[in-house]
Amino acid sequence: MALKTTGLDELPVYEKLMKLARNPHDLSVPGGVNPDRIAAYKTSAAGFDLLYSTQRVDDAVLNGLQQLADQSGAVDQFLEMKRGAVMNKIEGHESENRQVLHTACRDIFSDSPYNTEASQQAKQQLAKLKTFLTELDKGLLTNSRAENFTDYINIGIGGSDLGPRSLYTALSAFSRENRKVHFISNVDPDDAAAVLKKIDLSRSLVGVVSKSGTTLETRTNEEMVRAAYSSAGFDSNKHFLAITGQGSPMDNPEKYLRSFHMYDYIGGRYSATSMVGAVMLGFGLGCDAVMDILRGAHAMDLAAEERDIRKNPALLLALLGIWNRNFLGYETVAVLPYSQALLRFPAHLQQCDMESNGKSVTRSGQNVSYATGPIVWGEPGTNGQHAFYQLLHQGAATVPTEFIGFRQNQQDLDLEIRGTTSQEKLVANLLAQALALATGRPDNNPNRFFTGNRPSSILMADKLDPFTMGSLLALYEAKIVLQGFIWNINSFDQEGVQLGKVLANRFLDHLYVVNRGEAKDRDKYPESWAMLEAAGILREYQKQ
Amino acid sequence: MALKTTGLDELPVYEKLMKLARNPHDLSVPGGVNPDRIAAYKTSAAGFDLLYSTQRVDDAVLNGLQQLADQSGAVDQFLEMKRGAVMNKIEGHESENRQVLHTACRDIFSDSPYNTEASQQAKQQLAKLKTFLTELDKGLLTNSRAENFTDYINIGIGGSDLGPRSLYTALSAFSRENRKVHFISNVDPDDAAAVLKKIDLSRSLVGVVSKSGTTLETRTNEEMVRAAYSSAGFDSNKHFLAITGQGSPMDNPEKYLRSFHMYDYIGGRYSATSMVGAVMLGFGLGCDAVMDILRGAHAMDLAAEERDIRKNPALLLALLGIWNRNFLGYETVAVLPYSQALLRFPAHLQQCDMESNGKSVTRSGQNVSYATGPIVWGEPGTNGQHAFYQLLHQGAATVPTEFIGFRQNQQDLDLEIRGTTSQEKLVANLLAQALALATGRPDNNPNRFFTGNRPSSILMADKLDPFTMGSLLALYEAKIVLQGFIWNINSFDQEGVQLGKVLANRFLDHLYVVNRGEAKDRDKYPESWAMLEAAGILREYQKQ
Repeated sequence: MALKTTGLDELPVYEKLMKLARNPHDLSVPGGVNPDRIAAYKTSAAGFDLLYSTQRVDDAVLNGLQQLADQSGAVDQFLEMKRGAVMNKIEGHESENRQVLHTACRDIFSDSPYNTEASQQAKQQLAKLKTFLTELDKGLLTNSRAENFTDYINIGIGGSDLGPRSLYTALSAFSRENRKVHFISNVDPDDAAAVLKKIDLSRSLVGVVSKSGTTLETRTNEEMVRAAYSSAGFDSNKHFLAITGQGSPMDNPEKYLRSFHMYDYIGGRYSATSMVGAVMLGFGLGCDAVMDILRGAHAMDLAAEERDIRKNPALLLALLGIWNRNFLGYETVAVLPYSQALLRFPAHLQQCDMESNGKSVTRSGQNVSYATGPIVWGEPGTNGQHAFYQLLHQGAATVPTEFIGFRQNQQDLDLEIRGTTSQEKLVANLLAQALALATGRPDNNPNRFFTGNRPSSILMADKLDPFTMGSLLALYEAKIVLQGFIWNINSFDQEGVQLGKVLANRFLDHLYVVNRGEAKDRDKYPESWAMLEAAGILREYQKQ
Repeated sequence: MALKTTGLDELPVYEKLMKLARNPHDLSVPGGVNPDRIAAYKTSAAGFDLLYSTQRVDDAVLNGLQQLADQSGAVDQFLEMKRGAVMNKIEGHESENRQVLHTACRDIFSDSPYNTEASQQAKQQLAKLKTFLTELDKGLLTNSRAENFTDYINIGIGGSDLGPRSLYTALSAFSRENRKVHFISNVDPDDAAAVLKKIDLSRSLVGVVSKSGTTLETRTNEEMVRAAYSSAGFDSNKHFLAITGQGSPMDNPEKYLRSFHMYDYIGGRYSATSMVGAVMLGFGLGCDAVMDILRGAHAMDLAAEERDIRKNPALLLALLGIWNRNFLGYETVAVLPYSQALLRFPAHLQQCDMESNGKSVTRSGQNVSYATGPIVWGEPGTNGQHAFYQLLHQGAATVPTEFIGFRQNQQDLDLEIRGTTSQEKLVANLLAQALALATGRPDNNPNRFFTGNRPSSILMADKLDPFTMGSLLALYEAKIVLQGFIWNINSFDQEGVQLGKVLANRFLDHLYVVNRGEAKDRDKYPESWAMLEAAGILREYQKQ
């Protein structure tokens, strides 16, 4: 089946939505957000409710967005993706030409998965992981003193860090006893130093995560941590795990205790439910938690196939995002979890969304003639209320927001103070913010006037646990790829990161030569040399 | 002296800058960023270099920005602020009517401070702090078992959390031995639970930070931690410190081991160098580090008085921000520190900037007719390179960026791999990104084409230590208030957070009634009730 690759502005419904956008639903008038609307504008799937009465949409807009979904064939493309179509490509130009099969990692609960081969590979890796975790639990795999491993260092960057780290942070309330996970990502040597200062190397495992096995930051940090093992007199090969592509330079059993594989058909930013996240999460949270994450993600992957946008939270969130970005013209979206455990989840979404949809070229290599992926940012509430919400309420820019909340807290501790618990105060604040941003409030004092009409959605689940975390992750992954399909862009490559790598090597070339005391070939890359000079980086060496 | 309160678009130079903005300097042509320009577009103060050759400015624009600074009287207003003028007000309307004297906290090194009374109060509090820290060091102040305190919990939110926390995170490499600081901010009970799980209450001090002494989140978390002390059989009054306004409900010596005072003339988001940050930092890093932070901040406060924009990094950064926001039309700014220790600094700046300048009303109560504060966001590099930089290079939106880097790392650990150290790799990447964003690169493959002309600045210092951290903090504080003066807005109030508080209380009113099993007055606030129902928050109670 040939994929539809029509631009957003070529779809028949585009002009109709443009017209509707001239006069969007006014949330700020009396009754603009009324009880009937609040009850009606709600949909649910895989543990999450999506409340959208505080978006600037009405039934006419929702019908238009339904047509947009249908005309773009977004759900068809989503199904094609799951089946293994080569979605990662630019027609007529050199490109990665890969399948996109992160959903296969969790399509392991039925006898008829969408893509048999990828699901089979996922199951094989999971079986290897289970064996490994069982050996750890039974004390069959220990350090050289027959002690259990208590700590785990994850060395990875980008997709090999942000997704896994945000999941671990979200779920650390469910940690296995005497198991702790640490992360080293940045090439900044202080990142490794801070971790090495606080752990016992002898009782640590180190998971090195790089699909290519050549990521600069990751290999540099691996060498740094291996050097620390050597200095301490330990054999690092007995502590290091490789999570890498088959046949990569890291796929070497002599240097790693175990190897787990990742595949070309899963992009880094979509890899949290592959071995990239699973090995570390299995160590820290246990195997059952990993399986629950996969169950939650799979449940949402299935729910995201629904064609009726009013019954599909992922698709509806995607379309509301496009309404806000392309028709109302808002450039950013704030993701605001009312859960301290989701502290790092916005950073993961920032990556997953902006690296996927921060594009300017269609899937046939044309410049896009409309806006694509927004800038994604956010911090947990209620903290953000005391920080940047001033701008959300009264600033010059309108920021669509996506609130995420839970009815119950994770841990046992809560206290009723003045008639309500902390968890109730937390959720009350979330709901109040959505309502306040939408309705605003008139006031004779111009500095106390709130215009309202600042749109938001609310995602609400019972409790942040492995299942809902998996579901939430998959919801956003689906939202992002569905938007990419509608924008007709390739959400799976990242050519925009290449130029920086090329130029960084020029700077490193100069530093390499200076460090060796060789002739200073300042004319090789004059701008790079001039910037090194202006930044004072060469200063010390030039004194020589 | 009456303050100038002219709108940005009423200043004579406004039209000239608008004209220049139609054809801004092209960074992407050959020679657009050349060695001469790189060397010339640089200024330095208080330990920091500001490199701005990769901004879309030329000498004509810089001259225009100089006129903008002069015509707006930005530096005069900065001086008036330091002297104690009532800058926090809206003319003709009810407003806070307060002085703005956060600079006085570090104006303690001369005999003739700008505002004698405020500097005197700062010195008194510092003296009290020194006594307290000395008693801790000498073992005169211990727990009931005569053991030293090893841990400190900071309970505060917004300005009482983000600024102090970002400073502590930045400088934790300089921690005192056997001293560790933890933070509880969110009303989310899991935030307190996570901290309480990992510390020894008997050896902990708890600093509660709230100017009014009534902040919901902070008082709730205080009660929660006090309850934990009671359960463990300890007298919390012997462990708790109050950092609060004189006469607040928290200013009660019977309930706190010590009290430190903060004053109405310092807004929360500008309070990191007051007792709000100093008590916690004094415990964690020691008194000398606190004094070095203050020295660095004071040095930058003085440097920010310079009227020549080419010699004043804070003022120039402010003007470049206005050039990008008002004349080139960019809505956001990314702050990208190439230092893992600055992980939380963007979150602090997000608060300091967006709560200050996310405004729509002038200082005389008129609606502003031009854009004000941008959306501020960011994550450390090189991590971000593997996350959202795709959009920075090739996305539909242009994002001006502010890079922050250091020539040396903080800790002892570094390793030369393939001829360069990790620190060199880190800085090389920073410089390469600035150059790549500016120059772009043509390519026949449209997906590998980089348009360039994406502007950035670089802040560079020798090392992130207490002095440069203080300087960096003050640089951004000065940038923010200088921008506010030029926009003619009140950067010191936050009326935009009030409506959310009012509405949250409506939701809590309903929950309170439901929790007590009283008659359910769903018509009191019908929208609030409907949202509680739609979100499923009332579900459990309604079963009763």
